[in-house]
Amino acid sequence: MKIGFVGTGIMGRPMAGHLQAAGHELLLVQHRSPVAEELLAGGATVCASADDLAAQAEIVILMLPDTPDVERALFGAQGVVAGLRPGTCVVDMSSIDPIATRDFAARIAAAGGDYVDAPVSGGEVGAKAASLTIMCGGSEAAFARVAPLFAVMGKNVTHVGDVGAGQVAKVANQIIVALNIEAVAEALLFASKAGVDPDKVRAALMGGFAASRVLEVHGQRMIDRTFAPGFRIALHQKDLNLALSSARALGLALPNTASAQQLFSACVARGGADWDHSAMVQALEALADHAIAKVGA
Amino acid sequence: MKIGFVGTGIMGRPMAGHLQAAGHELLLVQHRSPVAEELLAGGATVCASADDLAAQAEIVILMLPDTPDVERALFGAQGVVAGLRPGTCVVDMSSIDPIATRDFAARIAAAGGDYVDAPVSGGEVGAKAASLTIMCGGSEAAFARVAPLFAVMGKNVTHVGDVGAGQVAKVANQIIVALNIEAVAEALLFASKAGVDPDKVRAALMGGFAASRVLEVHGQRMIDRTFAPGFRIALHQKDLNLALSSARALGLALPNTASAQQLFSACVARGGADWDHSAMVQALEALADHAIAKVGA
Repeated sequence: MKIGFVGTGIMGRPMAGHLQAAGHELLLVQHRSPVAEELLAGGATVCASADDLAAQAEIVILMLPDTPDVERALFGAQGVVAGLRPGTCVVDMSSIDPIATRDFAARIAAAGGDYVDAPVSGGEVGAKAASLTIMCGGSEAAFARVAPLFAVMGKNVTHVGDVGAGQVAKVANQIIVALNIEAVAEALLFASKAGVDPDKVRAALMGGFAASRVLEVHGQRMIDRTFAPGFRIALHQKDLNLALSSARALGLALPNTASAQQLFSACVARGGADWDHSAMVQALEALADHAIAKVGA
Repeated sequence: MKIGFVGTGIMGRPMAGHLQAAGHELLLVQHRSPVAEELLAGGATVCASADDLAAQAEIVILMLPDTPDVERALFGAQGVVAGLRPGTCVVDMSSIDPIATRDFAARIAAAGGDYVDAPVSGGEVGAKAASLTIMCGGSEAAFARVAPLFAVMGKNVTHVGDVGAGQVAKVANQIIVALNIEAVAEALLFASKAGVDPDKVRAALMGGFAASRVLEVHGQRMIDRTFAPGFRIALHQKDLNLALSSARALGLALPNTASAQQLFSACVARGGADWDHSAMVQALEALADHAIAKVGA
């Protein structure tokens, strides 16, 4: 298939590579990152602009940092929509605003195109290993058309619902991960401050109702003090910002998401924008004047 | 072994039954609940008071509702300490204040006894099935002495640390469970209010970093609207109260635990003291004027 791929940065570059390796023809456009050598070597064509790329592609995939980037690539000067042919499917794999997504989809539909939102989780590691979790929104027909491409880039692919549903699921995911990190941070800090080995507490709790992937992975990071990312606080802040602005638009209160966002802000204030998100614990530790430590360590 | 068992209510009754079935001799005392027929039929002796029970027992187990109940049973009029013989081990399996526990243990030690705190999770179902998770604090020697009894009542038995460590682990467990419930409630309510099927979102998220026992079990309850307990909000409020009062004593801020406690209070204000703790979502729903519903349901 002829696939236009806009946004070949840390995530998009290996994802595009998997599509090329599976035999698809890639059309690229010079965006933020330089066009990757290995994609050119594999036969990718570099187009002059996004409208030029859209005019030649059957599917246009976007993998960009944030909502304004996607809006600019689609609807800005020489954007995708200017070159879009009827029947072309736009697949936005960026993690962006669910409400803006519905607007973008309507504008693409008005131009004769289809739209699927398909944000991912799993990070750079998942992108390279083609093991991404992909949460999709769009019509049955549009999803069916692009699902074979998702199978090349990810492992856990779910069609959650209509357009926007993928972004909603991604926001829900980021809410739970942030709040589970906060929960584990409060619990392990409580144990450590009370003089009990947090390692033993983590082990005792893994068998019961407190068990979670976050207790397993991020709990261990808090105990071992390994805060190299992983997933950067600055990125998780962006995601919680999407959650809180969407919640406000929907008429919804998310008190603990708001609280977690403030703890991330406290980390950033202490120089932690690039810390792993499990380092949220350090904001609570600053308040307690005590850091989690193994007993006897 | 001659085991004095104080507190044969909903939890203690089946736990004492397992000990009796394993061949131990039970000494009981009339406390809140009437002495169970099946324990009497099994050969249990009813003592006049707790000091009388303690005078005859090798091990005294307590399974009582809250900190003041344990204090009264141990140190009140005709309490355990009045009859305690040197070398007797007091095992408190109630879920109570970790800091008070250390004080109780010191007073029992001054009277010549040993002390193990061993709160459980798993509820009435786990008590009946002898599948309780048991989190223990105490010396190596005291733990080794009573561990065979724990093996009769539970499955996941951990010696977390010194006296009080069991209660600290239990509080940590209850913090995480409450905050994971709150996290899942915010995320699924967000999805539902955004018009996306919460069932699909839950399924999409179970494969990734948002996965937890709470998303699995309590998330399903929120979607199915099955709020019969389970574990009652009034009991989880007691546990978060222990967390917050201990945190204050330790010099520690637990912002999201405090927030979750308030949401439980809102449920109680709406008549929900006996709802399952997953019904915390209803406090958030009241704020949003929207209840989680399956799409198309």
